[in-house]
Amino acid sequence: MAHIQVPEDAPGILGPMAINPESTKALRELAEVLLRGPNTLTPAEREMIATYVSSENDCCFCQLSHGAAAAEHLGGNYQLIDRVKQDYVAAEISDKLKSLLTIAGKVQKGGKHVTPDDVARARQQGATDKEIHDTVLIAAAFCMFNRYVDGLDTWQPTDPNDYREMGRVMAHVGYVRPRWENTGEAA
Amino acid sequence: MAHIQVPEDAPGILGPMAINPESTKALRELAEVLLRGPNTLTPAEREMIATYVSSENDCCFCQLSHGAAAAEHLGGNYQLIDRVKQDYVAAEISDKLKSLLTIAGKVQKGGKHVTPDDVARARQQGATDKEIHDTVLIAAAFCMFNRYVDGLDTWQPTDPNDYREMGRVMAHVGYVRPRWENTGEAA
Repeated sequence: MAHIQVPEDAPGILGPMAINPESTKALRELAEVLLRGPNTLTPAEREMIATYVSSENDCCFCQLSHGAAAAEHLGGNYQLIDRVKQDYVAAEISDKLKSLLTIAGKVQKGGKHVTPDDVARARQQGATDKEIHDTVLIAAAFCMFNRYVDGLDTWQPTDPNDYREMGRVMAHVGYVRPRWENTGEAA
Repeated sequence: MAHIQVPEDAPGILGPMAINPESTKALRELAEVLLRGPNTLTPAEREMIATYVSSENDCCFCQLSHGAAAAEHLGGNYQLIDRVKQDYVAAEISDKLKSLLTIAGKVQKGGKHVTPDDVARARQQGATDKEIHDTVLIAAAFCMFNRYVDGLDTWQPTDPNDYREMGRVMAHVGYVRPRWENTGEAA
């Protein structure tokens, strides 16, 4: 049972999101613009940043749901998402994304951990100021989402397969009024 | 100089907020509903939670600006805000707010740090589920705002007096299109 009363059978963030519609609206719009809005970083790249930060924060719901969304953007490549979480330096992703994941990992520890060298390395790999900005904000936002989910001790399925349909909806329908909210489907 | 190019003379979060209007809109709306929207927690209490978390994250801009907003809601009682940051257990605030600050401090460290005992103690002091929910989300949101401000190494005045006008605007005008954005005033 979660720390506070939330709707039964609503996994992870969907429980507390039922408590305050006004804050939920702002949170959904933030997720939508950060992860699916127009951007030179692909949705898959942004979902990988979100997944990696959530993994570093040990948030089961966020890493499995956003990992599923990332994999869905990549045609179902769940293996790549697992490799990014385990050791992104050795994963089959671009050097630019690796340099942005380094920045995201520093933000996860705390904003002051990001160094001028981290930023210079991302620029050398072709990252723009806007991409560095968005990486920092996505990483920071998931330090919020992860704390919201775990700080209220929400119910979180642990089987990755339970997140596949949710990932499909997140990737292709999005974060603002998604289908699983309207139908009451958990995943 | 910040890690990325931002408008000169824009302190703290106002620099990176100029980069991406769409994410900035969502961030401003989130701050507005969390800190100034209808709530059984007063705006002063919510700004104190934001200030305390920002202090624990060592974010100069956020703790001084939201501290000024909190003090403004309290008729200019800056001394109380300093005491809350230094030792809230000994500060002249309600036992309910103390129990909520304990939860906020746990969220700052990570969502899983919040215990059933922390939540039970808040309930014993009269906190509702909605107030516990909002406390967790405000604390989580400032773990985002703090990382956004420090992760990009923004310029942050260190004199508390530089934040007094900004605090007045935050308290009385709010976070959505505030006056200091339109006029270019820094503080």
